[in-house]
Amino acid sequence: MFESAEIGHRIDRKSYDREVPILRAALLEAQLDMAKLAQFPLIIVMGGVDGAGRGETVNLLNEWMDPRYLQTHGMGDPSDEELDRPVMWRFWRELPPKGRIGIFLGSWYTDTIIKHVQSKNGTADLDQSLERARRFETMLADEGALILKFWMHLSRDRQKTRLKILEKDPKTRWRVTERDWEHYKQYDRFHAVAESVIRHTSTAEAPWTIVEGFDPHYRSLTVGKTILDAIRKRLDEAGTEKNGISAPPPLPSIDNLDILKTLDLGQKIDRKTYPDELEKYQGKLALLTRHHKFKKLTVIAMFEGNDAAGKGGAIRRITGALDARYYTVIPIAAPTEEERAQPYLWRFWRHIPRRGRMTIFDRSWYGRVLVERVEKLCSEANWMRAYSEINDFEAQLVRHNIIVVKFWLSISKDEQLKRFKEREDVAFKHFKITPEDWRNREKWDEYEQAVCDMVDRTSTEIAPWTLIEANDKNFSRIKILKTLCERIEDAMKKVRKS
Amino acid sequence: MFESAEIGHRIDRKSYDREVPILRAALLEAQLDMAKLAQFPLIIVMGGVDGAGRGETVNLLNEWMDPRYLQTHGMGDPSDEELDRPVMWRFWRELPPKGRIGIFLGSWYTDTIIKHVQSKNGTADLDQSLERARRFETMLADEGALILKFWMHLSRDRQKTRLKILEKDPKTRWRVTERDWEHYKQYDRFHAVAESVIRHTSTAEAPWTIVEGFDPHYRSLTVGKTILDAIRKRLDEAGTEKNGISAPPPLPSIDNLDILKTLDLGQKIDRKTYPDELEKYQGKLALLTRHHKFKKLTVIAMFEGNDAAGKGGAIRRITGALDARYYTVIPIAAPTEEERAQPYLWRFWRHIPRRGRMTIFDRSWYGRVLVERVEKLCSEANWMRAYSEINDFEAQLVRHNIIVVKFWLSISKDEQLKRFKEREDVAFKHFKITPEDWRNREKWDEYEQAVCDMVDRTSTEIAPWTLIEANDKNFSRIKILKTLCERIEDAMKKVRKS
Repeated sequence: MFESAEIGHRIDRKSYDREVPILRAALLEAQLDMAKLAQFPLIIVMGGVDGAGRGETVNLLNEWMDPRYLQTHGMGDPSDEELDRPVMWRFWRELPPKGRIGIFLGSWYTDTIIKHVQSKNGTADLDQSLERARRFETMLADEGALILKFWMHLSRDRQKTRLKILEKDPKTRWRVTERDWEHYKQYDRFHAVAESVIRHTSTAEAPWTIVEGFDPHYRSLTVGKTILDAIRKRLDEAGTEKNGISAPPPLPSIDNLDILKTLDLGQKIDRKTYPDELEKYQGKLALLTRHHKFKKLTVIAMFEGNDAAGKGGAIRRITGALDARYYTVIPIAAPTEEERAQPYLWRFWRHIPRRGRMTIFDRSWYGRVLVERVEKLCSEANWMRAYSEINDFEAQLVRHNIIVVKFWLSISKDEQLKRFKEREDVAFKHFKITPEDWRNREKWDEYEQAVCDMVDRTSTEIAPWTLIEANDKNFSRIKILKTLCERIEDAMKKVRKS
Repeated sequence: MFESAEIGHRIDRKSYDREVPILRAALLEAQLDMAKLAQFPLIIVMGGVDGAGRGETVNLLNEWMDPRYLQTHGMGDPSDEELDRPVMWRFWRELPPKGRIGIFLGSWYTDTIIKHVQSKNGTADLDQSLERARRFETMLADEGALILKFWMHLSRDRQKTRLKILEKDPKTRWRVTERDWEHYKQYDRFHAVAESVIRHTSTAEAPWTIVEGFDPHYRSLTVGKTILDAIRKRLDEAGTEKNGISAPPPLPSIDNLDILKTLDLGQKIDRKTYPDELEKYQGKLALLTRHHKFKKLTVIAMFEGNDAAGKGGAIRRITGALDARYYTVIPIAAPTEEERAQPYLWRFWRHIPRRGRMTIFDRSWYGRVLVERVEKLCSEANWMRAYSEINDFEAQLVRHNIIVVKFWLSISKDEQLKRFKEREDVAFKHFKITPEDWRNREKWDEYEQAVCDMVDRTSTEIAPWTLIEANDKNFSRIKILKTLCERIEDAMKKVRKS
């Protein structure tokens, strides 16, 4: 979930200075159009870790935008007046009217997260307040509000660095308080709670946008651009008779860097080492899946990846180590007639394995947010809601002690071309290549965007994505086997002896 | 919530025999159209108390309808296969495909309710499984499913009677088990849990329909007719480009009886007794609101009613007993410009009183499901979702220890006419009557339906409606004062001494 916000996004001074005036002018214009139309309010929630620049960003937005149509609410501790009323009263009273923007620095999430980090409220309280937040936002969206929720993120190391930098400079020292360092000590706990909160409250109508907070230029442009895109999108739709959910657009690409681009696809395992490694991990997997504790476990392993990335080969290396009675491979192609007559998750629910079994999906329920999104086989509203439906689905699996292992096999555009050609040239590989593969290839960038959004929104603590550098098949297969073994081992440790 | 299902609905044999063949033919036709179109499935959940005829009704539906397009799932204890998978797996596998009907006798609610009644799961578990149910149904609705949830209700006495009748007859004795009597002993607890479950899971897309289960003719026709209306409504919409929520229609009127018609409007307090009674209850209210414990309480009293039902007069009898520093009366007219620029509940949130205060609303947030519904000032989707938003809103108030007292003042159509004429004739009352009042009067039946739906969906254990027989102003005012005193007294008992 935070992967894309830990890859070192940055914008140099020169580009920043060039971009800002353009962005500011566009924001002012959008604001004015929004005020003139007066059909919807924009509610901005600004959350995140200390030192990630929430405050600075809000200050900047106030500088950039027209203060007549913008109000910022720094929600600190509630007043007497506010304590005398239901919790949500203080937020209701500050809601922006149609045509205006309200920025909440501190929101209906703040108290919930802090209390839970400090263990002052239990899971039941957490669930209840998240449910309240979700209903509140659904109601706002149904009433026409546009909702943008930003989470400014820093990795653990980066947070430390940031706090130290701020402390060193006499001009910014005052910003770092005892409390900030205390929060830093609780980084892991805070991180886990935040992850869970974001996962449970990223709905189609009000998803969280996670922004890497380390580089001020990057984060400022990203937030500004996201706001601009969202207002423009909504203004464009205002004329049309659109009834469904109008979701905010995905994270804009500011520095042309994304999680897939950070992968080191050059990683290799040479031909000599490979057989030993393969034997080692296949042996390990064989032992693990035959262990008596495995009877209490269930594994769902799932493969997505670029065309020709080597999913099939990788799957065969896994099944080679397994007992045929206890696993099934489910290739996912276009849905059958029976499947089309059901909700789209039905075709995956039907293949949920029993305890002690493993099911391997060759392509999966992520088709909805990949091919169906890019090829426009379903509406935006449908694939937007799919992220939270999928998270729900996987949460149900995990709650039932199913290990969900998700692989994305990534190859470079050049490597794909090489493999396509090989498939066309070699007779027995010919069946593997179709005109559709070539067509998909033309949409490489759109797929890349879809994959990044997918990882951002569905790589969760309970069911993380593992990105596989797959230019070298040997490297890819070993990393997959190794990851699978590790996940099973981890789960086994948790199985009580009996 | 159960009020309308305890008023003794019944249909005589003759009418029943006349209606059934017509209904059956219509149901078969609707089923066939639905199967031909194959655009949406119908999912029927059948819940309710023992002896209220869930099983019989389902059997009857199977008899009436075409078995090729209908499947019933009596979900008993889960099998080994099912226990090996996540809880919802067994329901997913039985989902009807598009064009078909699936009846769930025993559903994703059954286990939740029973476990909670037997105190085998806590509030957190309950919250979690209701949340799961809600998300499941939202997903189904988003995927196009039509969902009907029936709750077959019996009052405590009626349940006892039913079980005894069944036991007496040798032919039906087998139906009554030990377990049924055990459940009967837990009636109150079961009732409270059911109320809470229904309140939390009556959404716009999948509301519960509560059916009085005592008279077999009534309940069979009601369920059959509801199903028919829902299928027809959806089929009619199938051609159009409708995108929003398509809610199932409200409870059909089968026997021309409703909760308002059961009120005994003839109740009176004579002129001699009235002054004493008024003094008594005004005195009581004065003392209660000046009690030191009242400082910890908050009261929101809310008046709705027919035009000319005497809301204003009743409110003045209350405020006559209060200290002007501690109460406010908020008359609700058309929203101001500022209010129109906000979500519709905003104008009520802003008037939430502090502790130790009372706010009286002369008309209220129920305008959304009364005048706005009947006069078509907002879309069906908007007023349909308002029920659960209002329940949410009131739940937030109650959680903050606010006492929510809701009055509906009911007068007969004749009495209204008399009062309208009086207003026109008497000079100083003239300002009270407008052409709009006459126009509203023409829609008497539509308003009556809206009021009944409102009471069915928003009279909750935490914030019940009190229906006031208001043909006699004296009777009305005393009943209101008395109810208000009682609610305050009850709440005071719960305030801890300090």
